[in-house]
Amino acid sequence: MPEIGIGLIGTGFMGKCHAMAFQNAASVFNTALRPRLTVVADIDEATVSNFAGQFGFGRWTTDWTDLINDPHVDIVAITTPNFLHKEMALAAIAAGKHVYCEKPLALTSEDALEMTQAAERAGVKTMVGYNYLKNPATALAREIIASGEIGDVVHFRGIHNEDYMGDPTVPHSWRCTRDRGGAGALGDIGSHIISIALYLAGDIRAVNAQMQTVIEARPDPASPGTSLSVENDDQTHAMVTFESGAMGTVECSRIAQGRKMHLAYEVTGTKGSIVFDQEQMNELHLFTAADQHRLGGFRRILIGPDHPHYGAFCPAPGHSLGFNDQKVIEVKCLLDGIDGDETALYPGFRAGYEIEKIIDAMIRSDAEQAWVQV
Amino acid sequence: MPEIGIGLIGTGFMGKCHAMAFQNAASVFNTALRPRLTVVADIDEATVSNFAGQFGFGRWTTDWTDLINDPHVDIVAITTPNFLHKEMALAAIAAGKHVYCEKPLALTSEDALEMTQAAERAGVKTMVGYNYLKNPATALAREIIASGEIGDVVHFRGIHNEDYMGDPTVPHSWRCTRDRGGAGALGDIGSHIISIALYLAGDIRAVNAQMQTVIEARPDPASPGTSLSVENDDQTHAMVTFESGAMGTVECSRIAQGRKMHLAYEVTGTKGSIVFDQEQMNELHLFTAADQHRLGGFRRILIGPDHPHYGAFCPAPGHSLGFNDQKVIEVKCLLDGIDGDETALYPGFRAGYEIEKIIDAMIRSDAEQAWVQV
Amino acid sequence: MPEIGIGLIGTGFMGKCHAMAFQNAASVFNTALRPRLTVVADIDEATVSNFAGQFGFGRWTTDWTDLINDPHVDIVAITTPNFLHKEMALAAIAAGKHVYCEKPLALTSEDALEMTQAAERAGVKTMVGYNYLKNPATALAREIIASGEIGDVVHFRGIHNEDYMGDPTVPHSWRCTRDRGGAGALGDIGSHIISIALYLAGDIRAVNAQMQTVIEARPDPASPGTSLSVENDDQTHAMVTFESGAMGTVECSRIAQGRKMHLAYEVTGTKGSIVFDQEQMNELHLFTAADQHRLGGFRRILIGPDHPHYGAFCPAPGHSLGFNDQKVIEVKCLLDGIDGDETALYPGFRAGYEIEKIIDAMIRSDAEQAWVQV
Amino acid sequence: MPEIGIGLIGTGFMGKCHAMAFQNAASVFNTALRPRLTVVADIDEATVSNFAGQFGFGRWTTDWTDLINDPHVDIVAITTPNFLHKEMALAAIAAGKHVYCEKPLALTSEDALEMTQAAERAGVKTMVGYNYLKNPATALAREIIASGEIGDVVHFRGIHNEDYMGDPTVPHSWRCTRDRGGAGALGDIGSHIISIALYLAGDIRAVNAQMQTVIEARPDPASPGTSLSVENDDQTHAMVTFESGAMGTVECSRIAQGRKMHLAYEVTGTKGSIVFDQEQMNELHLFTAADQHRLGGFRRILIGPDHPHYGAFCPAPGHSLGFNDQKVIEVKCLLDGIDGDETALYPGFRAGYEIEKIIDAMIRSDAEQAWVQV
Repeated sequence: MPEIGIGLIGTGFMGKCHAMAFQNAASVFNTALRPRLTVVADIDEATVSNFAGQFGFGRWTTDWTDLINDPHVDIVAITTPNFLHKEMALAAIAAGKHVYCEKPLALTSEDALEMTQAAERAGVKTMVGYNYLKNPATALAREIIASGEIGDVVHFRGIHNEDYMGDPTVPHSWRCTRDRGGAGALGDIGSHIISIALYLAGDIRAVNAQMQTVIEARPDPASPGTSLSVENDDQTHAMVTFESGAMGTVECSRIAQGRKMHLAYEVTGTKGSIVFDQEQMNELHLFTAADQHRLGGFRRILIGPDHPHYGAFCPAPGHSLGFNDQKVIEVKCLLDGIDGDETALYPGFRAGYEIEKIIDAMIRSDAEQAWVQV
Repeated sequence: MPEIGIGLIGTGFMGKCHAMAFQNAASVFNTALRPRLTVVADIDEATVSNFAGQFGFGRWTTDWTDLINDPHVDIVAITTPNFLHKEMALAAIAAGKHVYCEKPLALTSEDALEMTQAAERAGVKTMVGYNYLKNPATALAREIIASGEIGDVVHFRGIHNEDYMGDPTVPHSWRCTRDRGGAGALGDIGSHIISIALYLAGDIRAVNAQMQTVIEARPDPASPGTSLSVENDDQTHAMVTFESGAMGTVECSRIAQGRKMHLAYEVTGTKGSIVFDQEQMNELHLFTAADQHRLGGFRRILIGPDHPHYGAFCPAPGHSLGFNDQKVIEVKCLLDGIDGDETALYPGFRAGYEIEKIIDAMIRSDAEQAWVQV
Repeated sequence: MPEIGIGLIGTGFMGKCHAMAFQNAASVFNTALRPRLTVVADIDEATVSNFAGQFGFGRWTTDWTDLINDPHVDIVAITTPNFLHKEMALAAIAAGKHVYCEKPLALTSEDALEMTQAAERAGVKTMVGYNYLKNPATALAREIIASGEIGDVVHFRGIHNEDYMGDPTVPHSWRCTRDRGGAGALGDIGSHIISIALYLAGDIRAVNAQMQTVIEARPDPASPGTSLSVENDDQTHAMVTFESGAMGTVECSRIAQGRKMHLAYEVTGTKGSIVFDQEQMNELHLFTAADQHRLGGFRRILIGPDHPHYGAFCPAPGHSLGFNDQKVIEVKCLLDGIDGDETALYPGFRAGYEIEKIIDAMIRSDAEQAWVQV
Repeated sequence: MPEIGIGLIGTGFMGKCHAMAFQNAASVFNTALRPRLTVVADIDEATVSNFAGQFGFGRWTTDWTDLINDPHVDIVAITTPNFLHKEMALAAIAAGKHVYCEKPLALTSEDALEMTQAAERAGVKTMVGYNYLKNPATALAREIIASGEIGDVVHFRGIHNEDYMGDPTVPHSWRCTRDRGGAGALGDIGSHIISIALYLAGDIRAVNAQMQTVIEARPDPASPGTSLSVENDDQTHAMVTFESGAMGTVECSRIAQGRKMHLAYEVTGTKGSIVFDQEQMNELHLFTAADQHRLGGFRRILIGPDHPHYGAFCPAPGHSLGFNDQKVIEVKCLLDGIDGDETALYPGFRAGYEIEKIIDAMIRSDAEQAWVQV
């Protein structure tokens, strides 16, 4: 079977997640292309060498340009902090590699556009890691909407709330700076719920946002007893207008006490509604006009082999997929896309750029306190 | 024990609810003032006479001015369609009666202000029927917030979604007209969630709203085969800024398929969060910073005798109050207020007017597509 | 309209609940018979006189035999401790009164049979206060089962767990003694879930039980520092065989930490299932074989006016009934029954006796550690 | 790093699950021993050769004895139908291999004992695939109980209900026969909930069971239009007495309409309770006596890196593990056990035998309609 060489940059949370996904995609899905873990790069030698051993990479390097120039690498997977995405992706594209980049694609929509155009010119395939789109429950939601089962979408409410920075003693980091983190909650997790808004309800025409930094300074980890300003948003919400004419709201917070993975949405159509919460990621709740009777009500659909991708993991319904399984599906889509199925390559850089445009528009809207066209 | 005469105008859904509440408040709470069902008024003689018999009113009338002028009536309870509130309330005030008016107080904030000022000048007591404020769970939420248990409120998300007009064959009625219904979903149920926003997170300084009429025409019940335009909103949402600086969103819909009484809120503070849904009206979910540990998580508080008002209904926790019990609490507050406890008189006309101001500001904001100060 | 005189014995938790129910049944349901609160009896003069004033009884007495012999009393409502039911009921029957007795009917099935036969001989109407049978959700469950919607019932799991005696410092009382309380958790709350088992799955043929007293002694309230033995069960569970051949389990506990009103059941049929928990008493969860498809799942039915009795309280679905509303429905059934609708008189004394027989069989089964025919 | 050779027998649902788990355990947990997928066996050549390619096995065979005798195989993983476990395990033990056998260990407790003794004599390591024990939520439940947080366990209710044979047109198979499937629902899924009962509440002393075959015949797949008798139980429930003196119930069904993975338990202690449902496998609900206050209630613990094993998969809480991740943890335990950590080897064959003893006792109890000592 044809192998495809993987070069992975970054060995943190998402680096590990990528490595596992590449290990599993071929077995779970029996893909035509088989990933080969060729090389992994990170700046710390001890870390990267251990990581290479743990996951069975062919070799490791502390120089990511070395990885990119490795002729055995076909796909460059980028899981580094946000501010590094652009340089790495452009270099990989220049080297003719396919690029699989973690979200958010870039710090600004201008950068994202530059990356997108470079990839399109070079003819390389791209994927951005909006992995929650790969949850079978959300893929099912999209199918239900596309089928007309809930009529025309008239309202979308999307939320992605967590509390990982809810404690004011969580130290300052690159995530808190505009030039390295970009938007705060909005860039980090708001981008996820925007990706879902687009996936389920279509293009967004205009936005009207409010952003706030609630915890204005955080301890400087480099200098005990002092603190540094937080430069980006702890919480953001926005009204949005979809191209379809539907209304929506999008909301995100990194300080929402008690919320751990509360990526949730409610899609209201003229003939039904869909309700979802990623904290119970294996359930989709559906109500249709046909349920408007004495024994009707929201149906709790437990995800199973009748739904997208699940059956490859388990033949029995209700047994649950997990967070990492979403990434396996994402890698399968990437492999299928490189193997010729263009429709599988969603969201690619172009879609990632659309998300960044919306984020930029929200930032502008907040500054201007006004509606902004995307 | 001192009795107080009740004159009830209207025998529909809320008329019945008021009648039952007056019957029960004295027994449940052993109030000092005992309501006496003196007279009931409605336009249809058969209906009102039956109603009087069913609930044991002393007499009935088809002329509401007759009721208002009855010297044995001390409290005039108004449960008629929205467009009648103003005239009736002003007449009752002029007759020196206390007024208990269903929400929304009036069709516009100007009308509401006129009513408020008239009542204040006359020195009569007033109450507006925002009964969900009387749910012990929501009263508990307010106590928790006031105690500082969740720190400073930084975000409020409020929703009141139902689907009573989700079916496009539901006929046109006064509710669909601006001059008799006022705002649509916003006036009818959005007013409830605004009342809760104010109750839990304080005054609102500015709003930014979007409103939509999704089902643009409905069958004319008077003329089969023809339809009439719907003049007001099926769905509205808004961003709001509280005086405290907190951000919030408020959302309402009368076409949200599958939702029956989805009045729901999430209040996020710097040290905790509260989550509630009126469809499970006997539960409040609380997370505090102290729960941020290995065995912590949202606590599902089942309402019981430790919480406001519940113990008067039942000494055992978790046994559940119902919709009508909220109205009994509301009447108890009204009676206590008339008996001298001014703090019990919330929300009175002044508070009802504040809600109308916000509704008006939202309508203006939607028209101007801009932030509007309240 | 014809009035019917009520004599209420007992002014505690259930006494108050009865008084409110009699006050409301006529108004809520517009019943043909109108209850008149004639006389209330309790042993403490201050308590009973206050109670009479609070609820508007015509008079009060500290001598329950006086109440029973009052010619203006037509229905005797008994809400006293369990060990008093028999004597009072027999006296009321002897006086030709209808009897509305709180559950459990008696301390033993022999007593219950004696009471039942006396009532049947006298031709008076009876009702036993198994109020959870009157919850519209459970009435709906019965209708669904009767309609064949879930096929033949093959399994029933019933639970009634609370924690009102979970704290070992809760003092000893008559509830802890066999001669005054009868069975412990089994008599007090297990009787409720047995009543539901019979209501939903039909007669029980045989039982096999285990009973335990977990907290073996409790503080003697009369003698600080000393304790008294607990003579009855803190927790009981049993396997049961229904006449239909279906299997079931029944379980109850008064020491189930965290459970407040966890009366819950799951009924499995050959073509569907029903799931319910009284802590969310306005919801019934239904799955049918027709839901066995890609978009199928348990439906969360929110109780509304399409379901039994709800519409008399509220015309809008999902607005919730409460604990006390169940009692109003029970009184309505009693009034209808006295007015000639025999089918409304469920559960009468005969049904109450059936429940006691099952409780007795469970006690015997536990003693013999064997299956016992009912 | 030291490698350990894996020989996998069976390529069905659990075969695939094992293969993935062996692929992942080393990377996820960075185990000292690294599994090498040496050889896979199954009877169909096309199937097994494809499988070998899909998962990267070194070679394949259609002769399982060949696999067992391969000197490069150190662990034999058995995922074949139940009736084959014994012969294969004994052969593997005889060849000096460690054995990792899917549950149930054997068709009878006698067989299970024989296998256990053979393994102990041979000194090989064993593990039985009761994978739900490896769910971090259930591991956390065990830690909570061991810590004394909920006091002494006084009651356990365990359920494992599914509906995979709820449709009477599901054809007959080896699962429906006593000599090849053993017990029905009890052996297949009841064994899981028994494994959890033992894990959380300790040894079981006596059982009292009821078993039923509800769908008595199923279509013969080999002979259209005819049917074959079902020889084992569709549903079983039992009362159990733990060595500790605690009471419990255990219940299982393969025909519970609507249930897909309803492995659920409630553990009641003298000072708290734990509630769990595998359909929401990333949540544990905990109530402790310390929650017995005005703001207390069941806490919904979202599983995260503070809980057993989760952190190896994901550093962020609430992101969810899935069904297959449990198997990865199981394999990690097996590898750790072979590497010298005996405590990790749970449940081994001895524990699997204890489960079979309880199943046998339940079958005997059902036949005798009496309590049976284990």
